[in-house]
Amino acid sequence: MSQPGFGFRVTHTSGGARCGIMTTAHGEVDTPAFMPVGTQGAVKGVTHRDLEGSGAQILLSNTYHLYLRPGDDLIARRGGLHRFIGWSKPILTDSGAYQVFSLAERRTISEEGAHFRSHLDGSAHLLTPEKATDIQAQLGSDIAMVLDECLAYPSTVDAARESMQRTLRWARRARTRLLELRDGPVAGVAVSNPAQAQFGIVQGGVYHELRQESADATVDIGFDAYAVGGLSVGEPIDLMYDLVGRTTPRLPPDRPRYLMGAGTPTDLVEAIARGIDLFDCVLPTRNARNGQLFTSAGRLNIKNARYAQDDRPPDPECGCYTCRTCSRAYLRHLYVAGEINAATLNTLHNLYFYLDTLRRIREAIVFGRFESFRLEFHQRASQS
Amino acid sequence: MSQPGFGFRVTHTSGGARCGIMTTAHGEVDTPAFMPVGTQGAVKGVTHRDLEGSGAQILLSNTYHLYLRPGDDLIARRGGLHRFIGWSKPILTDSGAYQVFSLAERRTISEEGAHFRSHLDGSAHLLTPEKATDIQAQLGSDIAMVLDECLAYPSTVDAARESMQRTLRWARRARTRLLELRDGPVAGVAVSNPAQAQFGIVQGGVYHELRQESADATVDIGFDAYAVGGLSVGEPIDLMYDLVGRTTPRLPPDRPRYLMGAGTPTDLVEAIARGIDLFDCVLPTRNARNGQLFTSAGRLNIKNARYAQDDRPPDPECGCYTCRTCSRAYLRHLYVAGEINAATLNTLHNLYFYLDTLRRIREAIVFGRFESFRLEFHQRASQS
Repeated sequence: MSQPGFGFRVTHTSGGARCGIMTTAHGEVDTPAFMPVGTQGAVKGVTHRDLEGSGAQILLSNTYHLYLRPGDDLIARRGGLHRFIGWSKPILTDSGAYQVFSLAERRTISEEGAHFRSHLDGSAHLLTPEKATDIQAQLGSDIAMVLDECLAYPSTVDAARESMQRTLRWARRARTRLLELRDGPVAGVAVSNPAQAQFGIVQGGVYHELRQESADATVDIGFDAYAVGGLSVGEPIDLMYDLVGRTTPRLPPDRPRYLMGAGTPTDLVEAIARGIDLFDCVLPTRNARNGQLFTSAGRLNIKNARYAQDDRPPDPECGCYTCRTCSRAYLRHLYVAGEINAATLNTLHNLYFYLDTLRRIREAIVFGRFESFRLEFHQRASQS
Repeated sequence: MSQPGFGFRVTHTSGGARCGIMTTAHGEVDTPAFMPVGTQGAVKGVTHRDLEGSGAQILLSNTYHLYLRPGDDLIARRGGLHRFIGWSKPILTDSGAYQVFSLAERRTISEEGAHFRSHLDGSAHLLTPEKATDIQAQLGSDIAMVLDECLAYPSTVDAARESMQRTLRWARRARTRLLELRDGPVAGVAVSNPAQAQFGIVQGGVYHELRQESADATVDIGFDAYAVGGLSVGEPIDLMYDLVGRTTPRLPPDRPRYLMGAGTPTDLVEAIARGIDLFDCVLPTRNARNGQLFTSAGRLNIKNARYAQDDRPPDPECGCYTCRTCSRAYLRHLYVAGEINAATLNTLHNLYFYLDTLRRIREAIVFGRFESFRLEFHQRASQS
């Protein structure tokens, strides 16, 4: 049942952390990996070549946005998302669920799927597990996600159970649909990437027992790999780490584990310590556009007046283009003056910071010193 | 009187066109040259490295904007504009006059200079010929422009004469001031680039006799080189070419000639045919942000619906990053979706198109076939 074009191999472990290589139809990804978010087929403010230059090996793109505009039919006719956007490395697409729950208007959920209206033009749509699978097949990403229900935080245990069980039923339907698409032509669906893998998603809110039930049942369905969803939505941070730490042991060790939507650099370190391999988050890119830079000495708000005459780079320890060529004074000027280049330069730095942090983590794991890296990381973070 | 750090050497001629090398304190510029406009110390949407990659050898920046924000004092304390923005190649700054006339509020002109209020915060300012010289000395550009009066079009011959004569008086004051700054320390002015050259500006509206008088008198003052100002402001295009063609012979052949604010690719070819060496214009960058691309087959509006499924690059003959990696369909999607990347990718293309056109012009001049280049250029443009 597993996808021949997709693979994963753990190469090193250090404590609970692990290093590996994930293989896709568009190349390999060194894990733990961070996936920059290219919402509409582009990481805002950064060209693909600069993205690659920052060390990105895989891109995440949003099914909800691409489905609404320019449409998965159009992208399939262009030969799929890779060709359409000119990115030849791996791509993961989400199912669209998160944006339906956070962005769309007049959303109603039924057993069938999610009815919603487009935030662009108010048009009515129905996103079912099958439809989310079809759209991603047409996009031709290397990794597709199943449609899940995104539970609000906080929720009662009963609401969380009901939602988790619906997500399980949806996951079975999504898996059935993907296997139909793999088996042969399905009318109206152009499979842009026959080697596409599909990941299941563990839900269950903040309730250990529900997450364990979800993990076991999702693994029973048999996906190419598994994600932990529905976290980093407002719950206490230690609770998130605890839930992650108690979920990963129930996921197959020979498959990558993806913590969806997280997080801060600290979140990444802590989740990796608990056996997570993949991450995505808008934090480095969105915060960059708002003038917030992640540095080895903590966060830095470039709009702050005290940087107006500061000739130092944002992070003297960073090797990115922005830190090699721009002072805080110049970056502040660009931000205050409303220049597009502020978004570009800040995003280049934040992505490099995230991706470089992961490079250093992988190196620490390879040399069996992840725990000392983790300790030092937290000591530095607490000093800033 | 001429500036030791500044030089110009004509290496080839072909008809009225000429190829040369302009030397500045920050390196050489092959002429004819186009100067991308980096209004506030950055070309909107393009990093310096991409700008260099497009072939830019010199950048233009706007004194009005930098004076108001972040201020020439702050930039001087940072070591000058080159260091502040991290651009090590030549920079030309304008005098601020054009923006005072086009952007500032409540502007009044007296013999002393231009009183105006900032478009940013309404604060009152007086820009005199001396002040414009001082600001540019603090910025430390390689080439400073004298403050001139920007005449509205159309204007009567009397108004044009009066304005031209005031520009001449201002030019003498600006020259005197620069020589004072070169001679020794002047209180309150930090000279960031002692090798800064200063260009005079020929005015006179659309009146040949006034422009000839202006040219002769400006050359008599003795600047490092000369610009033709006040054109490309709405006058008939043939009249502009005619005025340029009758002005350049009165300017010293051993100094570069700069046509300010022009223009379309056709304008560049025609002005080069009349002996112009330097250009600046917001057209390639501003139009790029509005979705208009310059191509070898004419202009292309990427927002047009007919490009939604067009897999061709913007210009199949272009070798720029955008044309090598993006289809019209993708660029249209980015533009319609409001992505910053549309501005970046379109600007990269338009700048490359302009700079590559100049490379080809220089090559044509070197091989003595500028006239056949010009003929072919117009034939292709008329077919689109």
